[in-house]
Amino acid sequence: MHIREAHIQDWDAIWPIFQSVVQAGETYAYDPSTTKEQGLALWISAPRKTYVAEVNGHTVATYYLKTNQAGPGAHVCNCGYMVAPQARGQGLASALCEHSQNLAKELGYLAMQFNFVASSNTGAVRLWQKLGFEPVGQLPKAFRHPTLGLVDALVMYKWLADS
Amino acid sequence: MHIREAHIQDWDAIWPIFQSVVQAGETYAYDPSTTKEQGLALWISAPRKTYVAEVNGHTVATYYLKTNQAGPGAHVCNCGYMVAPQARGQGLASALCEHSQNLAKELGYLAMQFNFVASSNTGAVRLWQKLGFEPVGQLPKAFRHPTLGLVDALVMYKWLADS
Repeated sequence: MHIREAHIQDWDAIWPIFQSVVQAGETYAYDPSTTKEQGLALWISAPRKTYVAEVNGHTVATYYLKTNQAGPGAHVCNCGYMVAPQARGQGLASALCEHSQNLAKELGYLAMQFNFVASSNTGAVRLWQKLGFEPVGQLPKAFRHPTLGLVDALVMYKWLADS
Repeated sequence: MHIREAHIQDWDAIWPIFQSVVQAGETYAYDPSTTKEQGLALWISAPRKTYVAEVNGHTVATYYLKTNQAGPGAHVCNCGYMVAPQARGQGLASALCEHSQNLAKELGYLAMQFNFVASSNTGAVRLWQKLGFEPVGQLPKAFRHPTLGLVDALVMYKWLADS
């Protein structure tokens, strides 16, 4: 597995992953009807950095890193991770999250925040906790799950700097 | 005091308020060096609605309303309020917040969320609590205050719908 920085020309390979995750509507606060062009803006153009994970030359996972808030909040970054359905259960999300934490520190960020983790996504919540993220907020009924209805969303946070 | 919807041509009157609040760096996650053009994009173009409060024909306060998260989070809105320095202490923030809650309900939102309230901004925290917002999250050292250094930021939330 090889993790490398992604650019606009990688979007064709990332798009099927993005689309499958977003259409499921269970994890990300993106409109399920997001077009390929809008997705490019959200996942590659707007973030500060985007990376892909490749296995045997195939793009199987991706993440972005962006500054979470401007000005007085600019020392905290935000990341999002997506793994292709056929590549799940192999530790890719974990590997990408570790990679993103190192990148964040290199870029000078002091902390990382996940703004909107569906509480129903228990696998992700457990994984982020294992990787050192703490739930620091719980937004009542803020996530509309396609089958469960309105569920809470969690804010998760990890201080990255040594002090 | 008259509250009305604002448009691009109101930006000249809003900008001095925006600039004084953002340059102080004590309350909003905007870069203090935000230009007038960037401010217009942030405060008027990007939000779904922007309003101003006028007293004797002068713009003295303003707020925006936007959808806080897309897709599965699109039933929760976010607002930001700014009052001109010379017009503070007269209940304008409170009036604008009440106005924005009614607008949010008219637009079909079920809840309102403030993503990033500096914990050092005790006046705002108290006011939002008085108006029914609860602190639902606390982000450790997420706000860099110009004199106090790194302070916590609060996430505040109010359910607007009847059920």
